Amino acid sequence: MSDTTFIHGDRIELRPLEEGDIPHLVEAENHPEIRRHISSFRTPLSESTYREERWPPSDNGVTLAIVPKDEADSDKAIGSASVGNIQQPDGYGNFSIWLHPDAWGNGYALEAGAFLLDHAFRSHRLHRISATVAASNGASRRLCERLGFVEEGAARESWYLDDKHVDAVHYGLLEREWEGPASVLD
Amino acid sequence: MSDTTFIHGDRIELRPLEEGDIPHLVEAENHPEIRRHISSFRTPLSESTYREERWPPSDNGVTLAIVPKDEADSDKAIGSASVGNIQQPDGYGNFSIWLHPDAWGNGYALEAGAFLLDHAFRSHRLHRISATVAASNGASRRLCERLGFVEEGAARESWYLDDKHVDAVHYGLLEREWEGPASVLD
Amino acid sequence: MSDTTFIHGDRIELRPLEEGDIPHLVEAENHPEIRRHISSFRTPLSESTYREERWPPSDNGVTLAIVPKDEADSDKAIGSASVGNIQQPDGYGNFSIWLHPDAWGNGYALEAGAFLLDHAFRSHRLHRISATVAASNGASRRLCERLGFVEEGAARESWYLDDKHVDAVHYGLLEREWEGPASVLD
Amino acid sequence: MSDTTFIHGDRIELRPLEEGDIPHLVEAENHPEIRRHISSFRTPLSESTYREERWPPSDNGVTLAIVPKDEADSDKAIGSASVGNIQQPDGYGNFSIWLHPDAWGNGYALEAGAFLLDHAFRSHRLHRISATVAASNGASRRLCERLGFVEEGAARESWYLDDKHVDAVHYGLLEREWEGPASVLD
Amino acid sequence: MSDTTFIHGDRIELRPLEEGDIPHLVEAENHPEIRRHISSFRTPLSESTYREERWPPSDNGVTLAIVPKDEADSDKAIGSASVGNIQQPDGYGNFSIWLHPDAWGNGYALEAGAFLLDHAFRSHRLHRISATVAASNGASRRLCERLGFVEEGAARESWYLDDKHVDAVHYGLLEREWEGPASVLD
Amino acid sequence: MSDTTFIHGDRIELRPLEEGDIPHLVEAENHPEIRRHISSFRTPLSESTYREERWPPSDNGVTLAIVPKDEADSDKAIGSASVGNIQQPDGYGNFSIWLHPDAWGNGYALEAGAFLLDHAFRSHRLHRISATVAASNGASRRLCERLGFVEEGAARESWYLDDKHVDAVHYGLLEREWEGPASVLD
Repeated sequence: MSDTTFIHGDRIELRPLEEGDIPHLVEAENHPEIRRHISSFRTPLSESTYREERWPPSDNGVTLAIVPKDEADSDKAIGSASVGNIQQPDGYGNFSIWLHPDAWGNGYALEAGAFLLDHAFRSHRLHRISATVAASNGASRRLCERLGFVEEGAARESWYLDDKHVDAVHYGLLEREWEGPASVLD
Repeated sequence: MSDTTFIHGDRIELRPLEEGDIPHLVEAENHPEIRRHISSFRTPLSESTYREERWPPSDNGVTLAIVPKDEADSDKAIGSASVGNIQQPDGYGNFSIWLHPDAWGNGYALEAGAFLLDHAFRSHRLHRISATVAASNGASRRLCERLGFVEEGAARESWYLDDKHVDAVHYGLLEREWEGPASVLD
Repeated sequence: MSDTTFIHGDRIELRPLEEGDIPHLVEAENHPEIRRHISSFRTPLSESTYREERWPPSDNGVTLAIVPKDEADSDKAIGSASVGNIQQPDGYGNFSIWLHPDAWGNGYALEAGAFLLDHAFRSHRLHRISATVAASNGASRRLCERLGFVEEGAARESWYLDDKHVDAVHYGLLEREWEGPASVLD
Repeated sequence: MSDTTFIHGDRIELRPLEEGDIPHLVEAENHPEIRRHISSFRTPLSESTYREERWPPSDNGVTLAIVPKDEADSDKAIGSASVGNIQQPDGYGNFSIWLHPDAWGNGYALEAGAFLLDHAFRSHRLHRISATVAASNGASRRLCERLGFVEEGAARESWYLDDKHVDAVHYGLLEREWEGPASVLD
Repeated sequence: MSDTTFIHGDRIELRPLEEGDIPHLVEAENHPEIRRHISSFRTPLSESTYREERWPPSDNGVTLAIVPKDEADSDKAIGSASVGNIQQPDGYGNFSIWLHPDAWGNGYALEAGAFLLDHAFRSHRLHRISATVAASNGASRRLCERLGFVEEGAARESWYLDDKHVDAVHYGLLEREWEGPASVLD
Repeated sequence: MSDTTFIHGDRIELRPLEEGDIPHLVEAENHPEIRRHISSFRTPLSESTYREERWPPSDNGVTLAIVPKDEADSDKAIGSASVGNIQQPDGYGNFSIWLHPDAWGNGYALEAGAFLLDHAFRSHRLHRISATVAASNGASRRLCERLGFVEEGAARESWYLDDKHVDAVHYGLLEREWEGPASVLD
């Protein structure tokens, strides 16, 4: 496989999704630890459905696979990060990220998020990046806060997750508030 | 034209949009007083484009034309109201409404909104209805508040309107907070 | 308009639906007295949508417009009756009927139902015809009973109507139980 | 093949159907012990037809392959379970399940059914789940009863099976009646 | 016809193109005084071709018909103006305008251009608007200069017009250079 | 692979793009050193997207892969060069070229450019070839100058690259100014 790396981080690389990533993407969406915070993952996802309905990914935004550098012989994606639903001329985009639970606890999400946000602001002339997280999803909320997102309110009881309605917490980060990856990673 | 009235109010009737309404809908979207608060109306809309791209309206929700009762011989729509983007099983929908500026100041929007919200909660088993309004749009914000919506925060500088970025104010109304049209209209 | 009468009753005629009937069909589906017992009518229906999505009617069954004979100069449909979802070789079909509220109280539904059931059993080798009615719909339940349907149970809380779940009452009529229109109409 | 497990049970796992399952699915539908209770399986089914007409499976519901855990090296599906025909906003779904006859007698169906019902109620905000079983199908009727379904009546002589008409027995289970998998499996 | 005016000027109105404008648009493209400066108009244009290939107009930009106010009973377009080929996130657009020769000499183009440029900068968050004019087209060059465009160079001998190659003069106007319609029209 | 060489240079060969080149093309577009001067490369490109949306290449022009002769056993493309957007009868085309950064510094681009320009003038009756380069892209600007292009101006602040707007420098080369590859390469 050729080297399609788009962004070189310190411990991870970010490259476009390729068809060979589909099994990993499907495995993660079905994983109980992933889907319990994301209401749109309530229906089981098969590789066939993924190929038929979601491939290739829409190009209205930036979606990148996250690959750790120290897994030297492998190109295996452990997650993906995106700034999607880009609205121009508003300069608006929506940030989301997930890692396979086996890769949690290494700081990969923070690094991937920091480099992706920097790219999105610098290359796509975004004025603001939003993120929406279930109130029950502590890990994702801490990640947003470490990346510098400002909590702006919550849409009360918006999502039905595990037999109850939960709040959707809204975050926002303005271009003038973003100080670059170093401010987050150091 | 047959009587396709869906909801009978006191001073207005609500009926499905018909092709004959397109000229009024287009006129209103192009009207400077309407589009100055709605970033998606920044591109001029022609009747041809409306017919080609938006007709018939998507049926993922409830969209109704607003017709005053006292214009006896006429079936002319003066605006439209909708609860769209319905998400199930979450029980989530999004409220929006507009009136032609010539019809402002008569309380039509309040009555149309009250009857539509009541229908949406009672017939579509919604748990929550959202609304999003530009911070600069005082009339729509007052309408949401009179209908009982709770202000839940603002996505800072989300929309580009008239040479600057403005906040998008988020409102929410839960099924258990809704007490029926009479509580609003009396 | 040519005379396309399919079944001649005593006080009504049954003929195929024509495009000219669409305004009446749409008006009736939107009528609050009709839709309050039928959960699938919860979304407003426009003539445009009817033409685009439902016309021409599917031919897996028998659907007929109901026209009163005494409205001499008119061919106006006041309702429709069908035996649909025919399953062969099981010999199974599903009966449904509605009349515009202005035509209620004249016995038209009973006569239309009797002639249609007779036709369906005699021409389609049906072994059984089913009907399902909201428990709250007294008029339709009485009609089924006068036509000879046997109540066979209720699917508890199946439909969401006007802010609560209601039972769906199941009826069945076997070919050997059907004794012809005269036994019902006399 | 990646691990796409959606639900981890005690003795079985539930995962989405994949194309590799088609031969097993076709074998089962053609098996005399399966099809003798299901009228819609009366026509011989080929793999080609399955691929052409039924693949990928519709996503209006939850369909999962049943895989025993103790067949260590294998990912072979021994059956499938689904809650399909989901109707929203009614909160209505239809339960069905089958196992290959070679896997009968191990309690796999009970466990698969219990975990699937739990998921469907908790994630899809269902108010009621229905099941319909031929009166002659003792094993499936006992399964429904052990899962807590209430018998609500029978549509007399609805299906033509093995030279005679048999009753279709209707079952229903309400969300408030469901007490979780443990109440069934212990 | 309904009033679809998008921008109200002093002596002209700007509204979306409608199908009824096609004969005027075709007449103008074929007019010797128009096409002698525009190399892409060298092929005769029929109304049929226009309807087939160019209608409805692409919506990647802002295109408006120019209608004089003093032709009281008429809605006849005398020309059109557009900011097209909008590139985001660059914030780049391309200005063009034409009037039927019968309407020249009244200052309509200057007014239409000023209001359109203002709208494009204010509503589409453009950073720069370009224009390209044949060196031989004195009237259009003077118009660009009165609107505040800066001449930035010429692509030598780019277009073949009337038996010789002519230069294409490039103009640019930055958002920070634009001071509003009044600065141009007073 | 058969020898599809189209133009034989001294140190390179130019041949049509083949599907086997896609991984190299994708790798190069994602390479930070390539994309930092080209605003249209701001979105990550996957091989799947390339195959779906850009393959086969449009044939409105001349696009050739650049292959060094001294990599004897290989047919690997190290870049591509094109004269595209050919406009006839104006005799106008647009030149562009890129090399993978690993191949920079060998004079390959100069040789490829010289042979391609010669072919385009001689075979396509071009009157003029244009090139547009970001002001910040010193290497490409020097290449254009060595090939004989005349700098004709700059479209100020046209492209958004790495958090700021940069000028797009316009170059032009007329058929009568082109003296053949030898004049450039000697």
